[in-house]
This record gives sequence, structure tokens and C-alpha cells, in this order.
Amino acid sequence: MQQLDLFYEGKAKKIYHTDDPDLIIIHFKDDASAFNGIKKARIKNKGIINNEISEIIFQELAKENISSHFIKRLNDRDMLAKKLDIIPLEIVVRNVISGSMAKRLNLKEGEVINNTIYELCLKNDKLGDPLLNRHHAVALHLATYEDLDKMMEETIKINQALKKLFDSVNITLVDFKIEFGKDKDGNIILADEISPDSCRLWDKTTKEILDKDRFRRDLGDVIQAYQQVLERLKNRK
Amino acid sequence: MQQLDLFYEGKAKKIYHTDDPDLIIIHFKDDASAFNGIKKARIKNKGIINNEISEIIFQELAKENISSHFIKRLNDRDMLAKKLDIIPLEIVVRNVISGSMAKRLNLKEGEVINNTIYELCLKNDKLGDPLLNRHHAVALHLATYEDLDKMMEETIKINQALKKLFDSVNITLVDFKIEFGKDKDGNIILADEISPDSCRLWDKTTKEILDKDRFRRDLGDVIQAYQQVLERLKNRK
Repeated sequence: MQQLDLFYEGKAKKIYHTDDPDLIIIHFKDDASAFNGIKKARIKNKGIINNEISEIIFQELAKENISSHFIKRLNDRDMLAKKLDIIPLEIVVRNVISGSMAKRLNLKEGEVINNTIYELCLKNDKLGDPLLNRHHAVALHLATYEDLDKMMEETIKINQALKKLFDSVNITLVDFKIEFGKDKDGNIILADEISPDSCRLWDKTTKEILDKDRFRRDLGDVIQAYQQVLERLKNRK
Repeated sequence: MQQLDLFYEGKAKKIYHTDDPDLIIIHFKDDASAFNGIKKARIKNKGIINNEISEIIFQELAKENISSHFIKRLNDRDMLAKKLDIIPLEIVVRNVISGSMAKRLNLKEGEVINNTIYELCLKNDKLGDPLLNRHHAVALHLATYEDLDKMMEETIKINQALKKLFDSVNITLVDFKIEFGKDKDGNIILADEISPDSCRLWDKTTKEILDKDRFRRDLGDVIQAYQQVLERLKNRK
């Protein structure tokens, strides 16, 4: 299997075709960005750590019968994955109040809520990834109601599995963002990465922030926090 | 039945207690506002026309077994209604693309969509009535999932009935906003008003705008448009 041309470059990843039309190579960069690209930095080794964390998480989800695009980690920074048509929607899952929504709806940060909040956002930098709902997504021809039901069903299972996984290493899964794509048979499959770039993770005991908010809020020790998440996941029983 | 103290004054209405604790009097003012209160004006006789249009619409909905807070029109500007605990959510129904959403999601104004768009917004001027979803509404303790299901069920019936009504007078119901409240027995009931202040109404033939957008966009002849909607509804077969 051979790496071919670059066909997509995002903020933190490059995606390459391979000589197998059904497979892609995802290259994890060290670049970090926040606030819709306004704040940018390079965080040494972030790509390596996120590749390894994503591997662990996708493997863990597979054990719970949740399929993803992940096939295997090829090396430090490269992951082999199924080629999907990415659905340009972000699904955000919030178990604890934090981030943009707290400000937007005047909710108290850190508040544990009785229900889980699921949000659908349009993946569109120019528009600032706005919140939308299932009816908008269908009107924009991004997905059918059936696709959205399936994504929601998978998302609920993913949240359960991730909460259990992080709980086992003394981390609170505050919130996370995922993306889905469709394979050539029309199956809806989890895509992208799951890492401290896409999750809010707090130490359960000390409430220490172990995710990209360390970068967003200039808290320092960003890579140390990512490294700690990886170590805890690797050393879990 | 006697009018007592003013207990709420909104942008276009005043609400009074009566000597019956289950009844209120809604007084329709001529005040108009747009863009979250930035643009303001007084439109002579608007209150009188909206009171009469709302009466016709609530009576029409009652024929379709859709209950509302409406009891009867008392005079030019006053409506007698059931006292409800208003749920601070606005439900917006969009049959044709227009207004704030077009800009927000980069959709083409006037586009007829295959699905109906239902939106939930927080009724909060300070926050700019932001879009939210059912999970936010539950987290904010504004409603239960069951309440929201009931509101949605009613909203679908209301849209069907209103589309039929306006269609019969050669008007396209582009979109509209409604509010619900709970009566003392916990029933969820349609509240507020339904008028050219809360609907987008276009002449089916000429596409002429017959609603508050004439005020928002400085198109002139605002009251003439409202009057025309009333006349068409009164003269329908």
C-alpha cells in the first residue's frame, strides 16, 4: 500500500490518497488552532500523541461494536483509515457545561446537567461553524433524517463508551466533538480523530484541565497534559 | 369580569390581570420593533388589525381542534385569554427560506425547501433570542422532553392549518413564530398572537410582502399590507 497525493489539508491533519481507492492515510501535524483559526501555534509532538490516543480510542470503540474509519496506526504520525465521504456536520456531546455554549445560553461553567446535550454544527469556517438542527441539515442537503437518526444512535453509544473509558483513568469527559462519513456502501461511520484536541478532559480529583483548553486559555504545559492523557490510557487496567 | 393591574408589557402588547385568576386581558398596542428592539416605530391601527387577525386565526385553529389561550375579542384592542405560564421558547416554522436563517446558514432567500424547518429559540432579549435545541431547553429547565414533543406535535398541526387558511386567500405562509404556555392543569396550549407581526406572508401571485418585513426593510405601506391580510381573511369563502 503506497501513499499518493495530498487531497485535503486541515488545521491539524493532512489526508493522502493511497493506491487502494478505499483507503487513506491521515497525517497528524503539530499545528494547533483555536477560535476559528484566530489563534495558532505549533505544539511539538502533539501530532504523535494524538495519533496514538486516537488509535487507543478507536480500538476501544471497536470492542464495543462501534465501527470507525480507523484501520491501523502506520507510524508515529500516520494512520491508515477507510476512505469516507465526510458529512460536513460536527456533532458535539456535552456531559458537563463548558465552552461556547455556556456563554451563548448563559449557563454556569462546570454545571453537571441531568440530561446530555447533543449539538449539531455546520462544518463551515467562513460561517463560524454555526449551531443548526436536523431540519436545517436536511434543507442544506447534508444528510437525510435517517442519516441523522443513525448518527445520533451511534453518538449515544460512543458517549457511553468514552465516558466509561475515561472514567477508568480518573478523567471526566466534559464534552467532545465527532464527525461521521459515508462509506461506498452508504454506511455511516465515525471518522476524524478523538483526542484532547476534540475533547474536554478534566482530572476527576483535581479538576485539572487535560485538553486543548490549556492552549486556548494560555494555561501552559499543553503537551504535558496530552502526554498524561496518553499515559493514563496506555496504563489502564 | 373586570380588568385589574398590568403585569407584563412587551414590545407590542400589554397584559392585565382580571378579577378571574384564570383569565387575562391582552391589549394590542401600535408599537412595532425589529432587530431585537434597535428599530422602533408606532404604526397607527396595527394593534386593532392584529387583534382582529389573531381572533380569526385562533377561531380557525379551534375548528381544527387546536386549542389556544384565545377566549374572545372584547373590543378593538383587547382580547380575553386564558392565563398560562408562558414557556420562554419561541418556535419558528419555515416553509420557505427567508429571514435570519438565510444569512446564518448561507441559504438562498425565497428557496422552497422539501422539508419544513422547525427552530427552537430562547426568548431572551439580552442574549438576542438565540437558536437552541431540545437538549438545551431541558438543561435550562424550560421544558421537559415530553413538553417539547407535545409542542412539536401541536406546531405541525398549526402549520398545516395555517398553510391551508392562507392558501385559501392567495397568500404564501413563508414562516411564523409561535409561543406556548401551560395552563393550571399542565396542558400545553398555544399562546401569544398570530398576525403579520409574527408571520411572513407573501402574495402568491405578485410575491408582494404583506407582513412586518415592510417595516423591517422600509418598504412603506405597512398598515395597508396588514389591512389587506385582514380583509382577505374576512372575505374568504
